[in-house]
Amino acid sequence: MRKYNLAVVGATGLVGREILKILVERDFPIKKIKVIASENSAGKKIEFKDQKLEVITATKGVFKEIDIALFSAGTEVAKKLAPQAKKEGAIVIDNSNAFRMDKKIPLVVPEVNAVDLKIHQKIIANPNCSTIQMVMLLKPLAQKYGLKRVVVNTYQAVSGAGKKAVDEMLEQTKAYLKEEKIENKHFKHQIAFNAIPQIDTFMDNDYTKEEMKMINETRKILAKPKLAITATCVRIPVIFGHGEVLNIELKSSYKIEALKSLIKKSPNIELIDDPLNYRYPLQTDTETNDNVLVGRVRRDNSLKNGINLWLTANNLRKGAALNAVQIAENLITNNLV
Amino acid sequence: MRKYNLAVVGATGLVGREILKILVERDFPIKKIKVIASENSAGKKIEFKDQKLEVITATKGVFKEIDIALFSAGTEVAKKLAPQAKKEGAIVIDNSNAFRMDKKIPLVVPEVNAVDLKIHQKIIANPNCSTIQMVMLLKPLAQKYGLKRVVVNTYQAVSGAGKKAVDEMLEQTKAYLKEEKIENKHFKHQIAFNAIPQIDTFMDNDYTKEEMKMINETRKILAKPKLAITATCVRIPVIFGHGEVLNIELKSSYKIEALKSLIKKSPNIELIDDPLNYRYPLQTDTETNDNVLVGRVRRDNSLKNGINLWLTANNLRKGAALNAVQIAENLITNNLV
Repeated sequence: MRKYNLAVVGATGLVGREILKILVERDFPIKKIKVIASENSAGKKIEFKDQKLEVITATKGVFKEIDIALFSAGTEVAKKLAPQAKKEGAIVIDNSNAFRMDKKIPLVVPEVNAVDLKIHQKIIANPNCSTIQMVMLLKPLAQKYGLKRVVVNTYQAVSGAGKKAVDEMLEQTKAYLKEEKIENKHFKHQIAFNAIPQIDTFMDNDYTKEEMKMINETRKILAKPKLAITATCVRIPVIFGHGEVLNIELKSSYKIEALKSLIKKSPNIELIDDPLNYRYPLQTDTETNDNVLVGRVRRDNSLKNGINLWLTANNLRKGAALNAVQIAENLITNNLV
Repeated sequence: MRKYNLAVVGATGLVGREILKILVERDFPIKKIKVIASENSAGKKIEFKDQKLEVITATKGVFKEIDIALFSAGTEVAKKLAPQAKKEGAIVIDNSNAFRMDKKIPLVVPEVNAVDLKIHQKIIANPNCSTIQMVMLLKPLAQKYGLKRVVVNTYQAVSGAGKKAVDEMLEQTKAYLKEEKIENKHFKHQIAFNAIPQIDTFMDNDYTKEEMKMINETRKILAKPKLAITATCVRIPVIFGHGEVLNIELKSSYKIEALKSLIKKSPNIELIDDPLNYRYPLQTDTETNDNVLVGRVRRDNSLKNGINLWLTANNLRKGAALNAVQIAENLITNNLV
């Protein structure tokens, strides 16, 4: 079996470290692996299987002989380094916002639109975390019933903002418990025991970038450029796992049991829906479960073909690192490397 | 000026204590006050202005000569004691779920439907906390534009479940930080650094009682028995202040600035909406602000006359104790005592 040369860019971040873990867990066919980060991290060692990999910076030629480069280093770094990597011969799978809405670049959740990978020109975009888990559910519903309109509200974990954000919440929490002063550096407001109705910066239409990502990326992934969808994104003091409440209006009528069966048999989705026994998905469940977890599925009687439901997934894994690795696996399986 | 004999039932709970604080803050015209609680608390002393009030139990005759009894002792106690209080001559303002949907009993938010107090027969119901803050906003919108449909998702504080729930979250938080085992007693699941998509118990239709309260109470308070409205209620690890995301479809078209002006001038509502300067309501703001705080107001382009917004209010004060005291004040002002 062929093995591949990989590079992980942004290897020391929360998502980068998760990518390395997942490559091991899934026994990815690796010949050689380079771990790349900023100068601050250069020279550090990262454990990987029985090796200690030295973190290097992205000098000229670093991507030569690399087959696949998994990027998770933010939009600015991606804009600078992805073209270099492509030129030096690597296929880039980028987790940032840099290329997602570029019409020539596939934006892929393998369970939903792996077919879009066929047209790749060496750069592939990994969608936003909160989008990935939502489209995993919307795709089967769209296929069977059609989507008339979607309203999504998020309950997003602090790890989505990186390690510094998690550290800040934990520091604030300790300060609160000791009745000491709470300091904000990463977040503009206290996040310990508080929610912040802003994720990413604001656009001219008073939506945040995160909200517009959910709207625009969903339309692109589902190939429904005019889908009626709106979003409100809120950060809550949870460490891992994004929660989402979806209110969906379907085009055709449905039976609730058939709809639940459809969810149950959809790939990498798990229905946890036994409310009388207090069984519904929790964000803490996603620490040890890579599926998109769906529950609280019930008819919305305020319109004709309405559904309410709650879903959650691990934002660092299915929402980022795992989806990227799945894309890489898919490229290999389909001879697209 | 006439002064009144009051009783506070459930005086040692979170809401009961808040009622006592608010009576002092608002200089309520009190002649005599009795503080009533269960046998467990009998004999305890509660500071009230320069007095130390002794907690008593609700023996026969305890409500004789009481003008107004403010109840915040749960549904079972209310069902038992409210009829007694009424019989003994008091007007009951009850914060539980016992009488809210009784057609003969007014369910009142003074800013919204004070007029309903006129028909009271000595028992008046205080609505659910998450309902109160929502109808404060829906009323002016309904009057000016008409409501076609409302979708609400909540981000509810742990204090809504009482003092034991808050203590449990804080204990769990400390345990998490020390990497010790997390124990659940009050909640069925971990609430520290987690969200729970269940508030109150489940009904046959797979909605929680909390969700159905928001639907049914809103219809009653706004006198719109067929209003299209749906709700999903989620508990998040915040101590004070319920957050809500509302997606509203209006009957008539609107201009965003006119709609914001309407919110701004509505009674006891404050518009905090300057996103570019990171200004929007936070649940922590409600610790020192009794208004319903509204922000993130923006057009929902997924339908014709849609709005998205975020609002928050103090669940123990405007959501419970303050609303009850306002009802009492309103009874006095309108000679209904």
